[in-house]
Amino acid sequence: MHQAALLGEAIHDAKTYGWELEPENIHHSWESLKDAVQGHIKSVNWVTRVELRDKKVEYINGQGKFVDPHTIHTQTKQGERTLTAKYFLIAVGGRPRYPDIPGAVEYGITSDDIFSLPKPPGKTLIVGAGYIGLECAGFLRGLGYEATVLIRSIPLRGFDQQMANLIVAEMEDKGVKFEHRCIPKSVEKADDGRLKVVWQNEHSEEFSDIFDTVLFAIGRRALTKELDIDKSGVKVAPDNEKIDAENEQTNVPHIFAVGDVLYKKPELTPVAIHAGRLLARRLFGGSTIHMDYDNVATTVFTPLEYGVVGLSEETAIERFGEDNIEVYHAYYKPTEFFIPQKSIVHCYLKVVAMREGDQKVLGMHFIGPQAGEVIQGFSAAMNCNLTVKVLMSTVGIHPTIAEEFTRINITKRSGKDPNPASCCS
Amino acid sequence: MHQAALLGEAIHDAKTYGWELEPENIHHSWESLKDAVQGHIKSVNWVTRVELRDKKVEYINGQGKFVDPHTIHTQTKQGERTLTAKYFLIAVGGRPRYPDIPGAVEYGITSDDIFSLPKPPGKTLIVGAGYIGLECAGFLRGLGYEATVLIRSIPLRGFDQQMANLIVAEMEDKGVKFEHRCIPKSVEKADDGRLKVVWQNEHSEEFSDIFDTVLFAIGRRALTKELDIDKSGVKVAPDNEKIDAENEQTNVPHIFAVGDVLYKKPELTPVAIHAGRLLARRLFGGSTIHMDYDNVATTVFTPLEYGVVGLSEETAIERFGEDNIEVYHAYYKPTEFFIPQKSIVHCYLKVVAMREGDQKVLGMHFIGPQAGEVIQGFSAAMNCNLTVKVLMSTVGIHPTIAEEFTRINITKRSGKDPNPASCCS
Repeated sequence: MHQAALLGEAIHDAKTYGWELEPENIHHSWESLKDAVQGHIKSVNWVTRVELRDKKVEYINGQGKFVDPHTIHTQTKQGERTLTAKYFLIAVGGRPRYPDIPGAVEYGITSDDIFSLPKPPGKTLIVGAGYIGLECAGFLRGLGYEATVLIRSIPLRGFDQQMANLIVAEMEDKGVKFEHRCIPKSVEKADDGRLKVVWQNEHSEEFSDIFDTVLFAIGRRALTKELDIDKSGVKVAPDNEKIDAENEQTNVPHIFAVGDVLYKKPELTPVAIHAGRLLARRLFGGSTIHMDYDNVATTVFTPLEYGVVGLSEETAIERFGEDNIEVYHAYYKPTEFFIPQKSIVHCYLKVVAMREGDQKVLGMHFIGPQAGEVIQGFSAAMNCNLTVKVLMSTVGIHPTIAEEFTRINITKRSGKDPNPASCCS
Repeated sequence: MHQAALLGEAIHDAKTYGWELEPENIHHSWESLKDAVQGHIKSVNWVTRVELRDKKVEYINGQGKFVDPHTIHTQTKQGERTLTAKYFLIAVGGRPRYPDIPGAVEYGITSDDIFSLPKPPGKTLIVGAGYIGLECAGFLRGLGYEATVLIRSIPLRGFDQQMANLIVAEMEDKGVKFEHRCIPKSVEKADDGRLKVVWQNEHSEEFSDIFDTVLFAIGRRALTKELDIDKSGVKVAPDNEKIDAENEQTNVPHIFAVGDVLYKKPELTPVAIHAGRLLARRLFGGSTIHMDYDNVATTVFTPLEYGVVGLSEETAIERFGEDNIEVYHAYYKPTEFFIPQKSIVHCYLKVVAMREGDQKVLGMHFIGPQAGEVIQGFSAAMNCNLTVKVLMSTVGIHPTIAEEFTRINITKRSGKDPNPASCCS
């Protein structure tokens, strides 16, 4: 759906590049997109099942529940199954949470539902400004819907806050509304079927508006309770029912866990896959390599994307002290933004590094198009102990946006203007 | 113009993502694109002049000619100028060459002309299959023109030939015609103003066809002769009149050179900029850092782009021996290709590495969209001595295409099928 929104922008760009179309008269069909997305998901599911079969993995479509530390029971359409095993791997992930307010569950939806929503979402309230909330708000606006985001405290908690605020500013420029320091109080259905939402700001003042869709993106909870995990002996964290496993091994030695169900680990698909692969190699392949949860790159797929690997500026300062950190930064102008005259005011990147010596890189942050493609290779470089010295001696590929990382030379400490010196080269 | 062609593809993609348009009825205006491109170039020129003025650099718009090793003379619109200096930097670059056949200069154009061509190019013959030839053929086809490429020997000489042949195959699938092992013999103007080109294959058989535009992309020559370089004492290579400078210093110690005018160095803008910066720092900033011409990443902007850094497979084998090299490779499926059902048959990448130990990476090759963004960070990683071991322990960003480099696990030596195991994950 993000890609669909980007293609909407591409239609506007195309006109300025000589393609004879009238973007203002081109509308978007939610139903077509939803059908395409659902078709894709079904195809992925199907291929996955075929692969499992090819690899002689039995796939049982049922909700598993521990009976004891060595037994899982499940009820399927085909009947009951009781399974025992030498090892167990818990990879149940999580589901979006709903707030405990009137009408939330009855009338609200979550990110799990938006991809199969049968009718266009219309004017939408997104509650929560984590990456899921911002991504949903971003693509909904890009597809032409009014989108309002309710932020309880800060956007993109856990991410570098300078970057997070630039993302919010960019989304505001694109027409997304933000209600800061507000929490929802109630959702009720109006006579015309639309949804009246009441929310409250930090001064306890109440506001309300009418929406077609209310989407809750306030976080996800691990599905450990559904697993009757207490019968397995595996302990869960009291605050969020996640599993605190070391090297993916729970407190019950033959029970392992990977993915979003893990306590204080990145909730990212490739992290789960990677940890699972390494675990399998350790258990069955004689490997001793453990998962390294540091320097995991990720990307927030907002309209201008945010790619990041390593430490935020605030974490680096907290860990090493401001005097020991050097932050290089720059605004830049993507070549492809010139002809369509797209706004470049939030195209920004920074490199957080140690101040001394060759300046070991601690974190890299990039806002712009294709941020995931840009940041991935640099995450490999950071795994090889990238320094600012090496970064500066790396020759750029012109014209790309990734080359901007090889051109950084202005430190925050210098107070110099980080705006681009020239429009190209 | 490449971006314009990509946006033409995006229009087709957009329809499958729910945007209600009819790609088959959307035409392209060459004049609009040409005007936009020219406007952009003028703006870049203007900004560059402003910057030079800001930095107190005098800009003299005249063709410089050496009078002696310490003197340059030039004739400008404002009058004659004679200049002396402690140091000279030659950065005259090169210009496209024409073949020595009847009609080439009279009726042919080069890549320098295509960006300002006043009328649509129409059916075009591109002579030469270096990166400039392939890029021009690619975007012309993408904009809707018939394009034929005449290849004398091999495509993308100097690049990995497996990758080069995949690029050619992809372009053929997109409708570009290739005439292999052919050289042009003559260009003449037909009565209707179109151009009749005669060419000859390796068996001396002659063929001909009628084109609207004939574009020569057979290589570029350094503009040293125009500089009266013999009067400077600077020696040029006998085969191509380029300057063989060590650390950018010519045989005349106070005369330096950077860029395409250098003998056996990559003809790439950022290489010239980087070498120039380092030279300036050595001459005036007390630096001792020299330009490293190895591991320079580059990208060929064909319809599916080709990003590369480091050694080709054949060079690695030549240098280290086949037994000492391991080549990992994979075909992959970009997420964004599913819904539009775009062909994935040439989406391919490979990593050329040493076979022993942690397997130091020698070369990385990537064919797909956004190849420049994908490869740039990995070039920084290679400058940090990237190994296959580190690459495999780097966690991917999902969904991106760059993450495919972190998932490589099939060697050519194994003979295993490098086709993607699943449609995602």
